[in-house]
Amino acid sequence: MRPVLALAASEACGGVLENALPAACAVECIHTYSLIHDDLPCMDDDDLRRGRPTNHKVFGEGIAVLAGDALLTVAFEILAQTKGTRHHSVASQIRELASASGSLWLIGGQVADLEGEGRDHTGAELRYIHRSKTAALLTASIRLGAMSADATPAKLAALAEFGQALGLAFQVIDDILDVTQTTEKLGKTAGKDVKATKATFPAIYGLEKSRSEAHRLTNKARHALEPFGKKGGRLREIADYLLAREY
Amino acid sequence: MRPVLALAASEACGGVLENALPAACAVECIHTYSLIHDDLPCMDDDDLRRGRPTNHKVFGEGIAVLAGDALLTVAFEILAQTKGTRHHSVASQIRELASASGSLWLIGGQVADLEGEGRDHTGAELRYIHRSKTAALLTASIRLGAMSADATPAKLAALAEFGQALGLAFQVIDDILDVTQTTEKLGKTAGKDVKATKATFPAIYGLEKSRSEAHRLTNKARHALEPFGKKGGRLREIADYLLAREY
Repeated sequence: MRPVLALAASEACGGVLENALPAACAVECIHTYSLIHDDLPCMDDDDLRRGRPTNHKVFGEGIAVLAGDALLTVAFEILAQTKGTRHHSVASQIRELASASGSLWLIGGQVADLEGEGRDHTGAELRYIHRSKTAALLTASIRLGAMSADATPAKLAALAEFGQALGLAFQVIDDILDVTQTTEKLGKTAGKDVKATKATFPAIYGLEKSRSEAHRLTNKARHALEPFGKKGGRLREIADYLLAREY
Repeated sequence: MRPVLALAASEACGGVLENALPAACAVECIHTYSLIHDDLPCMDDDDLRRGRPTNHKVFGEGIAVLAGDALLTVAFEILAQTKGTRHHSVASQIRELASASGSLWLIGGQVADLEGEGRDHTGAELRYIHRSKTAALLTASIRLGAMSADATPAKLAALAEFGQALGLAFQVIDDILDVTQTTEKLGKTAGKDVKATKATFPAIYGLEKSRSEAHRLTNKARHALEPFGKKGGRLREIADYLLAREY
């Protein structure tokens, strides 16, 4: 989903899709590395991902750590092989990706998630974790797609708002599906968050309030797209799709 | 030692030391991340590093994986915050670091090392592992220092030759010290390579031949510095220091 967001954001800014491919690729590498490392026995200890055994179940933990490291490294190599645009140098694009993936966001969120297991969370803590672990990289994907189309600062700011609302909505829905769906349908272990007494929206707010929060955030995301008019159609479709998804 | 090499290479190319600091920092981040991950129980399983308990012994394996991930990420962020020089863009410097740290070199070497444990190695395999795991990043450190001084292609090529010989010499000496020194002196577990039946130079060639190989490689490295005249003095000193070191 993250690569598609980069492409749709490029389209919303009138860009050429091919130019957004390196950003889409780089973000997918970062996302996949984070899943491989998160699934390790020393983190979330999960056996199933995308309907298949996790990396460490197949290749062993050492190789899984190294596969994640390699994907993380190649993400930056991919961006460094691009030319940049008039207003967005390669360096600024790499800073965008490194910041979203670094200890302030993606990794910081995972640290908070890891250290918070087995105890109760406030809504604010939960939002911090989801903003860091999910919304930041998702927003970076959208913004990098837009940067490849040489987007203006105003458009980048609007897309940041869209990405943050969409990212949070995505995670609320993920939390709901973890409770309401089967392992078979999800392609990853269902009920896992509850078992690990992880922070989730349904655990704090209940299912009904979580569902209305997902709707509220999706509307907020749609609202942020107004400046893009018809060109934002694909991004709107993705927001609606994510809200309605069942896995 | 890697950061010092970046500074010394900048000096050899007539550069300003401050300009080489981001390269020195970035390479140290990559090196430290690789040590934290290599020390994990699922890899080399080591309890001691630089005379202190390893990261996972103090903070747990999950945090150690994330600490490594964060260091790897920030390395690229540091380089992306620089301006580049006339002949060496930030993007080209990031490609240099990503290539040396990626699956072709640093990570590829660690995979070969991990998969080769417990069986005999040929000298060629051993050289491949050391060239990938040690010499590549060491060479990148030197070349990035030189790039910060806007070095010419000829100088970069000479420094690559220096780095490859020095990196191999460094690892031969490391292998020798693992056999001949105490844990206390090394600050990491001595005799570890033999215990893990790892590929080492003394195991394949014996101590005497390994010592003469370290001398031969150090001479080769010194020879590569000839074009730099007096300015290469610091790099020569480092080569001599590494040959004579006892830990």
